[in-house]
Amino acid sequence: MKSPFSSLIVSAFFLLVYGCTSTNPSDKNTSQATADSSAVLPSWQEGATKQSIINFVTKTTTQGSADFIPVADRIACFDNDGTLWSEQPIYFQLAFAIYQINKTAPKHPEWKQQQPFKAILAGDMKTVMAGGEKSLGAILAASHAGLTTEQFTQSVKDWMANAQHPTTQKRFNAMIYQPMLELLQYLHKHGYTTFIVSGGGVDFMRAWAEEAYGIPPHQVVGSVGGYRYEFTDGKASLIKLPELTFNDDKAGKPVGIQRSIGKIPVFAAGNSDGDFEMLQYTSTAKGYPRMSILVHHTDSTREWAYDRKSAIGHLDRALTEAPNYGWLVVDMQQDWKKIYP
Amino acid sequence: MKSPFSSLIVSAFFLLVYGCTSTNPSDKNTSQATADSSAVLPSWQEGATKQSIINFVTKTTTQGSADFIPVADRIACFDNDGTLWSEQPIYFQLAFAIYQINKTAPKHPEWKQQQPFKAILAGDMKTVMAGGEKSLGAILAASHAGLTTEQFTQSVKDWMANAQHPTTQKRFNAMIYQPMLELLQYLHKHGYTTFIVSGGGVDFMRAWAEEAYGIPPHQVVGSVGGYRYEFTDGKASLIKLPELTFNDDKAGKPVGIQRSIGKIPVFAAGNSDGDFEMLQYTSTAKGYPRMSILVHHTDSTREWAYDRKSAIGHLDRALTEAPNYGWLVVDMQQDWKKIYP
Repeated sequence: MKSPFSSLIVSAFFLLVYGCTSTNPSDKNTSQATADSSAVLPSWQEGATKQSIINFVTKTTTQGSADFIPVADRIACFDNDGTLWSEQPIYFQLAFAIYQINKTAPKHPEWKQQQPFKAILAGDMKTVMAGGEKSLGAILAASHAGLTTEQFTQSVKDWMANAQHPTTQKRFNAMIYQPMLELLQYLHKHGYTTFIVSGGGVDFMRAWAEEAYGIPPHQVVGSVGGYRYEFTDGKASLIKLPELTFNDDKAGKPVGIQRSIGKIPVFAAGNSDGDFEMLQYTSTAKGYPRMSILVHHTDSTREWAYDRKSAIGHLDRALTEAPNYGWLVVDMQQDWKKIYP
Repeated sequence: MKSPFSSLIVSAFFLLVYGCTSTNPSDKNTSQATADSSAVLPSWQEGATKQSIINFVTKTTTQGSADFIPVADRIACFDNDGTLWSEQPIYFQLAFAIYQINKTAPKHPEWKQQQPFKAILAGDMKTVMAGGEKSLGAILAASHAGLTTEQFTQSVKDWMANAQHPTTQKRFNAMIYQPMLELLQYLHKHGYTTFIVSGGGVDFMRAWAEEAYGIPPHQVVGSVGGYRYEFTDGKASLIKLPELTFNDDKAGKPVGIQRSIGKIPVFAAGNSDGDFEMLQYTSTAKGYPRMSILVHHTDSTREWAYDRKSAIGHLDRALTEAPNYGWLVVDMQQDWKKIYP
């Protein structure tokens, strides 16, 4: 199971072992809010960032405006990890994989003698790391494949209901960003159709995204594995296969948008270089005004602070080029009154 | 470009050359409509078929009903070719391919000496047939790849605006089925989200489905080709590649539903054995009442009559097993007052 996904996970393990990198928050400070803006997006600080969003939504949804966009073309795409919820110290999907392996270990006595499972069960991540991509492929296969889609969804729901984040001790779905939740709702209220476009696995996200964000499964675009259709004893099933058939990351994001949505977004939000092409694809398209947002992790107290040197949520090129493309950089420390619900 | 899609096209050419098979319409005759039903689905004959549909939609959307389905789970999936529009004497997507090759021939003087293009330009389908899958792959590559997604969409729109069906002389989008259009609208009005789930190419269908059916591009599921993301001179493009990355037919239909929708439909409609697994997947799922519909082409006067022996729209196993699964067989001649708008 050699794939870009695996290298993401190598990075994730690296951070789990060696900790996060940090940067200082920028000193952006703004105060251009109008009286009207206080009623919407309540967890966003008044200022230029919030006002830019409100101005864009207002001008694109006001009948008679030169920038009016018909409802059918109001497509808004959001990255998930680091954009709609946290992604430190490991991608939460990897936390699920580790949880799942620990949970199913009693059915696999052979894992006690077999790497990388032996090391996972002992919490020995350095040994897991030493196994490289082969180990990581085995972890994904053991936690994400061989189940029916219904069984897999149930296993994700079980994790979500019972597992705790290693440092905050919160449920993972309590680590979604309240300001982004308000932004999703604000867009939806104004006729936008909101999509997740993430490198995460599509079945993993769908198990909880409808409840957490109000985004239905068919508006979740992500990385896709294989499935085998079976019909046995009067019952149809789709069995999840240990293969990655589509990697929805980097230049894969515009492709994923075409495959699943079929229109160019007018609004896009990301937080890492993995979102670069999605924001570029959105902001350079003709015909309508477009808005692209880059969430910058600047809050080491309330969340995490990381960007150019981070393995997870690596944000370098996109941060450098944001001014050239007119992307709105959201400073989490300055622009958000609160982080989590 | 060896794929199941190519064998479909072999069948299409076969029919183009040798004509359609025919069967007699069944003698089903029904008269159980209630007074209420005349106000809805006006192009459907009063009778058991229409009443079954109304009963299903009523019981699944009436608050307090034991069979009530929440809006979020009201997922309805429709095959396209032969279910929402005609598919004889060739799949309309193949008619587009032939049109496109004729149209772009002036830019390809080499085609005058090169098969299968020489034969297509001469209208000599027997020679094209003799080239087998290799020829057909070349036809698809020449008509469906090498363009940006925007250029491809424009070429389909051009075909739709200008081409005529070879026997009816209608525009192809005038050969959608009025009763199915009413059914889509009826479901939508009752909180159902309607999807196309077709073996046809997703970009081909999206170019006209929103206008023809009111189904937005992100609710169109189909066969998918590859794309290459390019960013040149400040402009982002997705170039369509001459490869089939997903074939949304037969057991691929439940897989396509999982990839793009992520829920099991409660309502599905098809017309051929290519829809068998989709109807099986839908009708055998637990938790909610389900309805599966099989459109039976029985009207040799107003449309075409074909089923068990037809290459295009081959309907054999599904027709045989429909009673075992409780699928509603729609007799086009008996059940539909009119065919086209």
